[in-house]
Amino acid sequence: MTTMKDVAAKAGVGLGTVSRVINNSGSVKESTRIKVMNAVKALDYQPNEAARNFKMQKSLSVALIVPTVWHPFYSAFSYYVERELFKNKFKTIICNSRNEVDREIEYIDMLKKNKIDGIIAITYSEAIDQYVTSHLPMVSIDRHFTEDVLTITSDHFQGGCLAASELIRHGCKTIGYIGSVSKIKNESMLRKKGFIEYVEKQGITYSVKEINEPVLDIQREILSFIENTPHLDGLFCMNDKWAEKAIVACELLGKKIPEDIQIIGFDGAKTNEQAEIKHSTIVQPIQTLAQLAVKKLIQIIEGEPVEEKVIVPVTFFEGDTTKKVDE
Amino acid sequence: MTTMKDVAAKAGVGLGTVSRVINNSGSVKESTRIKVMNAVKALDYQPNEAARNFKMQKSLSVALIVPTVWHPFYSAFSYYVERELFKNKFKTIICNSRNEVDREIEYIDMLKKNKIDGIIAITYSEAIDQYVTSHLPMVSIDRHFTEDVLTITSDHFQGGCLAASELIRHGCKTIGYIGSVSKIKNESMLRKKGFIEYVEKQGITYSVKEINEPVLDIQREILSFIENTPHLDGLFCMNDKWAEKAIVACELLGKKIPEDIQIIGFDGAKTNEQAEIKHSTIVQPIQTLAQLAVKKLIQIIEGEPVEEKVIVPVTFFEGDTTKKVDE
Repeated sequence: MTTMKDVAAKAGVGLGTVSRVINNSGSVKESTRIKVMNAVKALDYQPNEAARNFKMQKSLSVALIVPTVWHPFYSAFSYYVERELFKNKFKTIICNSRNEVDREIEYIDMLKKNKIDGIIAITYSEAIDQYVTSHLPMVSIDRHFTEDVLTITSDHFQGGCLAASELIRHGCKTIGYIGSVSKIKNESMLRKKGFIEYVEKQGITYSVKEINEPVLDIQREILSFIENTPHLDGLFCMNDKWAEKAIVACELLGKKIPEDIQIIGFDGAKTNEQAEIKHSTIVQPIQTLAQLAVKKLIQIIEGEPVEEKVIVPVTFFEGDTTKKVDE
Repeated sequence: MTTMKDVAAKAGVGLGTVSRVINNSGSVKESTRIKVMNAVKALDYQPNEAARNFKMQKSLSVALIVPTVWHPFYSAFSYYVERELFKNKFKTIICNSRNEVDREIEYIDMLKKNKIDGIIAITYSEAIDQYVTSHLPMVSIDRHFTEDVLTITSDHFQGGCLAASELIRHGCKTIGYIGSVSKIKNESMLRKKGFIEYVEKQGITYSVKEINEPVLDIQREILSFIENTPHLDGLFCMNDKWAEKAIVACELLGKKIPEDIQIIGFDGAKTNEQAEIKHSTIVQPIQTLAQLAVKKLIQIIEGEPVEEKVIVPVTFFEGDTTKKVDE
């Protein structure tokens, strides 16, 4: 079996140089790097990964914190994260935090002790903020922390604009937004902001209803909003769960969808890979979010500089809760 | 800080005895065990977990292999497994195998090398069988391997009987079963067997359609089965996915559910914890399956004897695809 020594001999450099090239650590002259890589290739040298990882103090595992994997958005996200991490030789440790901060802290502790190499987190627990420090390899979805942690997010603001513009394009004259407000500031709140900015610019009549979390009876809140908003013919719901409740509310109120009222949700997460979305919604690119999260986290783990925030665009999916219109 | 030596001195036994009691390994007389535990209690001795695990060569992590976590049944199962393992101080490494045997083998290799302590597997890949050996800590859901591996399973046979008896109780006269056949023998095939045995005993007219996997167009298969089975007024589908396709097929054929035809599925997995099931179905106790899988796996890891097979009962959920009947 070829050893690192053989490579060093063939390249005419020291062992340390070979190590730095292979581990991509420390500075090496470009011409030297090429010499080493040619020797690696010529000798078909396979660096011993376990030994390399041991030296680099890598566990080759990443913790993925989600509120619960038992939910289409998070299960799709977890699926793509794990597949992507695996391609990069990392194992995925899953944590259903249920936003219990104690559980989240446990994984941050593991990270501090180098028992895991990084964390990808979707978290809405309040107290976690004080445990997050900028020098830990961590990527956050949608949420910002006090310390600098890379946030990867869909363009929720654009999504709000898009929902409004689609309702208007589909012929709605009086439109509404309904959703809840979380104590934890996160990007998803921009959905409402984008919606309002767009409709105000267009001079369209609109109503907004926001309920503080936790919302005890979403169904009742939506029903009363639809019932009490005169002429409402278009409704943008904060997410697909709310959109589903809005569909039921319309049934209960005897309102036909999309004839009497058109509905657009947000998320676009399918219940499984082969499933289809039925209602109209703003679709988050879950696979892209997952792939970016993994890519950026690995860059951070490897000491490469990354941006502060990455925003990816959303799209409109034409389902059966908006009217068919000619383009 | 109290050490193991202090405990040994107080209990009047050797260090080895204290170790055996604390790690629950090797044989210790009951009276000695009590003496040691009393000393542990009196001195408030906290065994150093990390050191203990190091000595026991435990990684305190378990791999959970599922075809994909992006599916309500598997995401619910994964959710409960992770929560239960965490309670027992184990981390959960998730693997979306997509039934790719190479990925599954990688985790079995990790287990052989003591990099993980055990595997909980839901797998339908053919080649995996030759890599599974009975001395590895492993628990399998629904599937049997050539070597002795504990199988934990719902009572699929009882589920098939239950589906048939419920269709009959709900007034069906001509009933059918439709599903696919996997090359991999597993307990879920007993659904059909239970169904047939029950209807034959009752002398009810029935039809069965089975399609070899992979089934390219479930929708078309179900539609043609319903269309070509005269007087069919009750249908048991192999799982909820098929039941959903059957509901669409009936819509397309202009058949009213449950007036013209009643439908029962299998699984009863909700899309998220707060969701509700709509159609009638046979419900697998996913939380119980997960809790048992974890409990039994830990017993195996700790060297305790376990049974060969554990079967848990299923239940009928009355949804909107069967008629309301008076009890």
